[in-house]
Amino acid sequence: RKLDKTRQDTLYFDSYSDNIESLRGKVVLDVGAGTGLLSVFCVQAGARKVYAVEACSIAEQAVKVVRQNSMEGRIDVIRGAVETVELPEAVDAIVSEWMGYALLHESMLNSVLYARDKWLKSGGLILPSRAELYIAPVADPVVEDRLQFWDTVKDQYGVDMTCMSDFARKCIMNSDIRVNSVTVEDVLAHPARFAELDLSSVSVEELRSVKGPFRCTSFGAAAVNAFCVYFTVTFPCADKPIVLSTSPFKAETHWKQALLYLDAPVDVVQDTVVAGTVSMYPSEDSIRHILWNNVVTCPYLHCSTDRCQ
Amino acid sequence: RKLDKTRQDTLYFDSYSDNIESLRGKVVLDVGAGTGLLSVFCVQAGARKVYAVEACSIAEQAVKVVRQNSMEGRIDVIRGAVETVELPEAVDAIVSEWMGYALLHESMLNSVLYARDKWLKSGGLILPSRAELYIAPVADPVVEDRLQFWDTVKDQYGVDMTCMSDFARKCIMNSDIRVNSVTVEDVLAHPARFAELDLSSVSVEELRSVKGPFRCTSFGAAAVNAFCVYFTVTFPCADKPIVLSTSPFKAETHWKQALLYLDAPVDVVQDTVVAGTVSMYPSEDSIRHILWNNVVTCPYLHCSTDRCQ
Repeated sequence: RKLDKTRQDTLYFDSYSDNIESLRGKVVLDVGAGTGLLSVFCVQAGARKVYAVEACSIAEQAVKVVRQNSMEGRIDVIRGAVETVELPEAVDAIVSEWMGYALLHESMLNSVLYARDKWLKSGGLILPSRAELYIAPVADPVVEDRLQFWDTVKDQYGVDMTCMSDFARKCIMNSDIRVNSVTVEDVLAHPARFAELDLSSVSVEELRSVKGPFRCTSFGAAAVNAFCVYFTVTFPCADKPIVLSTSPFKAETHWKQALLYLDAPVDVVQDTVVAGTVSMYPSEDSIRHILWNNVVTCPYLHCSTDRCQ
Repeated sequence: RKLDKTRQDTLYFDSYSDNIESLRGKVVLDVGAGTGLLSVFCVQAGARKVYAVEACSIAEQAVKVVRQNSMEGRIDVIRGAVETVELPEAVDAIVSEWMGYALLHESMLNSVLYARDKWLKSGGLILPSRAELYIAPVADPVVEDRLQFWDTVKDQYGVDMTCMSDFARKCIMNSDIRVNSVTVEDVLAHPARFAELDLSSVSVEELRSVKGPFRCTSFGAAAVNAFCVYFTVTFPCADKPIVLSTSPFKAETHWKQALLYLDAPVDVVQDTVVAGTVSMYPSEDSIRHILWNNVVTCPYLHCSTDRCQ
C-alpha cells in the first residue's frame, strides 16, 4: 500500500513544488518520508536541508533514492518515529503525506502535529496547510444487489434464505471502513462540508472528536443506503491554492472514497433534505455503527508504527 | 468472504443434487456448514439426516435457514469444531465446501479428513471426491507496468527512482498469496496438472507437502513473470462426473486464480518448454519464495477456527 501511495499520489506535490518559492532556502522536516520522493521534491523546490524521518524499513530505500539523486548533502534520512528522533535544529517547514482513508483512518496526522509542536519554528509552514471533510448520501446498487440476492434463492433453488438479508446487512454495517470508488451517478446530492482542520492550530485533543453538521438536498427520487465521506487538502500558493481533492467528481486517487452503510435504505425524493451531524473519532476496535437518526458516526484507526509496514 | 462464498459458489452443488441418487436415504455430515445451504440441498437430494457442523457464529443463521425451510427434523445444526463435536452416529456421506484459494490456502481440508477418519462409515462417500491442481505460466502486464513505473519517474519528474524497481518486486514476491482473475490472453501455455488428491484416501500428513512435476509448452513469444495456480474438484455422478473448475478459461468463481510472481521476467518463444516442480506446503508465516530454478514453492495457510469469522 505504501508503494502504491507513493507512486500514484505523491506526485501531485510536484506541480506544487514547481509553483512556489516558499521552500527556497528553508529547513524542512518530511514526516513519514517513505521512499523519499517528497523530500527530493522539496530540494528541487529549493529547500536548503530536508530531514526525512521514516520509522519503517522503507527508510533504506529512501537512502538509496537520495544517493541516486546525489542529494546526500541536502537530505538526511533519519530512521525512527518522529516522536522520538532528535533533529539537529528546528525547522522552517513540515511536509507530509499523512492522509489516510476518509482522511483520518490510519492517518499519520497525530505524528505531524507532534512534530509541529516539537520542531516547527513559530510561524513555520505546514504542507498541506488545511484539510476538509465532505459527506454525501449515495445509493450503492452493488450492495443492494448482494443483499437482495438472498431473496432470490427460493425462486431459483427452492431454498428460502430470506432470513439472511438482515444478517448480511449487519455484516456490512459492522465491518471495517469500506473504501471504494463511488460512481458519480450514485451520488444523490451535492456533497456537504462537515469539518475543516487548520494544520497550524488543530490539536491532537481535537482529533479525538472531529465532527460537524451537514445538510444535503437530494437531486431526485432514490433510495439512500449509504453515505460517502471524502476529503480535500490544500496547499497555499502565491497565485492560487492547490487543492488535492478525493471527491468522486474528481480523478480517482488511491484514497477513493469511504462508504458508511445505513441500517436500511431510506427513500428520498427531489429536494428531500438529508441533514445531520457526522462524528469521527479514534477507535481501537474498528467497530462502527451508523444509524439513520441524523447522526453519522465514523470511528477511525490511528496509524501506529507497527501498522506502517 | 464467507457470505460471498455461499452466495456465489455453493450453488454449483444444486445441479449436482438434482442429478444423483447417491444421497437418497443417507446420513450426511456437512463440514463447515456456514449458512446451511449445502445441508438443505442434501435434504432436497433425499438425505435422511444431515448433521450441519459449523464452528462460527454463522451457525445461528443456519438454524434460521433450516427453520425457514421446515427441515428441523432432517437437519441438526451443531455449533462447534468438527474435531471436537460428538455426533450420535457414524455417517454415510460427508459434504463440504472446504476449498480455499489455490485449493489449500486457508482451506478446511484438514477438518474434512479428520471428520472422514472419525465419522465416515467404511466405503462412505465424500463430496467432492477428488481435487486437482493446475499451473500455467502467465504474463501479468499490470504488475510489470507497476514495476516499470519507477523507471519513468526520472523523465517525468526529474527524480531517479530506478532503485525502487527491485525493492518493489521483492515486496510483490514476498507478499501473501495473490488472488486475481487471470485474463485468458495472459496465459502463455496450456495449464499442466501437477497434483491430484483422492479425498477418500489422502492423509493429513500428505497435505504437508503437495507437490508434483509440471511441463508446459509456450504458445508464443512472451515474458513470463508469474505462474497461475488453480484447481478443480469433481463429483462422481451416475452419467458423467460434474467438475467445478476455477480455470481462467472457465466462468469466474470467487476463488479466481492464485498468482506466484517470479524474481524477474523470463523471455520465452514459441514451444519453449517451461517445466519444473510445484511444491505447496503449510506455512505459519505466509512468506514464500519463488525462484526460476524449476522449483515453484507455494506455502499455504491452514484454516483454523479463529480465522473462520
